[in-house]
Amino acid sequence: MEITVQKTDNPKEKPDQGNLGFGTNFTDHMFIMDYSKDKGWHDARIVPYGPMKFDPAMATLHYGQAVFEGMKAYKSPDNRILLFRPEKNMERLNNTNDRMCIPRIDEEFCLEAIKKLVNIDKEWIPTAPGTSLYIRPFIIATDKYLGLKPSSTYKFMVILSPVGAYYPQGVNPVEIYVENEYVRAVPGGTGHVKTSGNYAASLKAQAEASARGYVQVLWLDGLERKYIEEVGSMNVFFKIDSELVTPALVGSILPGVTRDSTIELVKSWGIKVTERRVSIAEIFEEHKKGRLDEAFGTGTAAVISPIGELNWEGRSIKVNDGKTGRLAERIYQKLTGIQTGELEDDFGWTEKI
Amino acid sequence: MEITVQKTDNPKEKPDQGNLGFGTNFTDHMFIMDYSKDKGWHDARIVPYGPMKFDPAMATLHYGQAVFEGMKAYKSPDNRILLFRPEKNMERLNNTNDRMCIPRIDEEFCLEAIKKLVNIDKEWIPTAPGTSLYIRPFIIATDKYLGLKPSSTYKFMVILSPVGAYYPQGVNPVEIYVENEYVRAVPGGTGHVKTSGNYAASLKAQAEASARGYVQVLWLDGLERKYIEEVGSMNVFFKIDSELVTPALVGSILPGVTRDSTIELVKSWGIKVTERRVSIAEIFEEHKKGRLDEAFGTGTAAVISPIGELNWEGRSIKVNDGKTGRLAERIYQKLTGIQTGELEDDFGWTEKI
Ligand SMILES: Cc1ncc(COP(=O)(O)O)c(C=O)c1O
Ligand SMILES: Cc1ncc(COP(=O)(O)O)c(C=O)c1O
Repeated sequence: MEITVQKTDNPKEKPDQGNLGFGTNFTDHMFIMDYSKDKGWHDARIVPYGPMKFDPAMATLHYGQAVFEGMKAYKSPDNRILLFRPEKNMERLNNTNDRMCIPRIDEEFCLEAIKKLVNIDKEWIPTAPGTSLYIRPFIIATDKYLGLKPSSTYKFMVILSPVGAYYPQGVNPVEIYVENEYVRAVPGGTGHVKTSGNYAASLKAQAEASARGYVQVLWLDGLERKYIEEVGSMNVFFKIDSELVTPALVGSILPGVTRDSTIELVKSWGIKVTERRVSIAEIFEEHKKGRLDEAFGTGTAAVISPIGELNWEGRSIKVNDGKTGRLAERIYQKLTGIQTGELEDDFGWTEKI
Repeated sequence: MEITVQKTDNPKEKPDQGNLGFGTNFTDHMFIMDYSKDKGWHDARIVPYGPMKFDPAMATLHYGQAVFEGMKAYKSPDNRILLFRPEKNMERLNNTNDRMCIPRIDEEFCLEAIKKLVNIDKEWIPTAPGTSLYIRPFIIATDKYLGLKPSSTYKFMVILSPVGAYYPQGVNPVEIYVENEYVRAVPGGTGHVKTSGNYAASLKAQAEASARGYVQVLWLDGLERKYIEEVGSMNVFFKIDSELVTPALVGSILPGVTRDSTIELVKSWGIKVTERRVSIAEIFEEHKKGRLDEAFGTGTAAVISPIGELNWEGRSIKVNDGKTGRLAERIYQKLTGIQTGELEDDFGWTEKI
């Protein structure tokens, strides 16, 4: 399929790199492609970024048939534009599509489209330390119809947002509230895929944790409320004694690209990594025994987010004295080094545009 | 608050009443009201129905912060326009808002707005038997922002759709597949409120049941996969011996207005109604004993939808020989009679516009 390009006549002013925030500024262009039953995915185009006309009866607004991905582009010191394992995101998008009754996309073609779009807006990629260009591919159901069934038309779109350093003051451990009322996901549900409804469902727990003075929640399994699943919208790791432990992908956990990369990286350092059930009681027990060395979240936005404190049913523990652990710091340096092209990519994870 | 009215210059042609379908045609006008942190809900207006401009970064499209309601207006034989227990829908909408971190609406004001809108488009209310004007109030998050937090701006909207008879050939029992892989809802989640993501999550089970030749799925609880919750997007009732039984509202079931009305109505007839846990095994057991007289779903769209057959793990039972039960028929006649103003409203359920 050909991708037509219509360039903007009104390039926007680029935002100040010192004050980017996350997901508030958007670049000059966006990618759009339509789906209909008879034509399949068609009419691939890059057009000026801007508002679109949607019918008030658009299916997505009512029944939430919407899916997305999140990835980043970096400019390397020698001026290459790098993506980090983007084929993993395209693969996950199709897994999400399958679960949400949305037609599959051609992964290679969509990756080409993303590359083309990033290239057109490459002047928008920020270069200050910790900054990057966030890439948001998403699909929405566009039928104007209130019946409850999969839409017969869709739009696949990609928008780009230059984003700031997640930790303007350097990597900082956060206080986490172990959630025991609200549930994020359950096997048989949609927690293992990136669909919009998962995120709306998580807002309330997040808001109540904030009100209690915590930055994020730690999600327990929905069945027994015992086993750890994720932290905020990140995967989670614990260093217990000399081993790194993370919850196994049991069907209610999103298979994170950063999670997968962390596991591979840490194994390559000769450290044992185990994917298994981890109960919150075990974590508190190991802390008591002095064996809980570190805890951290992993995700595209923050890369590594150390956990400084965990509060569970009124009991509070400090992890590593509330300081960033050595392993978390080492993973952060190596992963961001590879992503930005500042360190050797021994894994073949980066893809040049 | 004042509601400004801007009438259309181009009234559409009204659809053929014999072939309305559900949710495909929309009337000439819609209601919109905006929310911002400083102004609260403001700028209430009735405007011509039509497409709206939305930013591609609109929060709803990405994180599914969207909620809705569904209700109907009927034209009575003596030309009154009737709503059915609309205050229940407004109350449920606010419960949904609370769970989804959306600011509450003024229930009375929104009901006034709905009445005003229906009145303006009253010529669109179909009068053929079984038809009605479907009313869809909904709220969407409108921030242009990819950070994961409750939006700071929203739109409350109401659109109207003339809808056909749910059963053009009269009430007809349907074949139901008891779902044992996918889960609709779990306590601590969002199953007890009307948010968009619940419906997207249910599409896959529905599609697989259709492929197996079933019209709908019966949802079991997400924890033990034993207890019955809902059927499709309806509440569910079983007549066992001389008693009517329905699953209790345990936090993962939507509290249906039709469910509530059915309970009250049937009780007024001197029939015992019990809200409790009902396992699928119990239903099969009672069928074996010859004590399962009837099974049916309840909801605004179909009012009453009899279940003719249940398939659970390869075993199939016919309910009431696959025919509509006497109680289901009696409830259907009485409820639709009250709704359309053809029968006396002994309960004070209808509200004249
Ligand atoms: C719910 C959830 N868990 C985990 C992750 C981390 O995944 P990734 O490392 O691919 O960004 C994300 C973010 O994408 C997420 O939304
Ligand atoms: C999931 C679900 N259950 C039950 C119902 C029935 O509720 P009501 O009788 O208020 O239409 C609906 C429809 O509104 C629904 O969406």
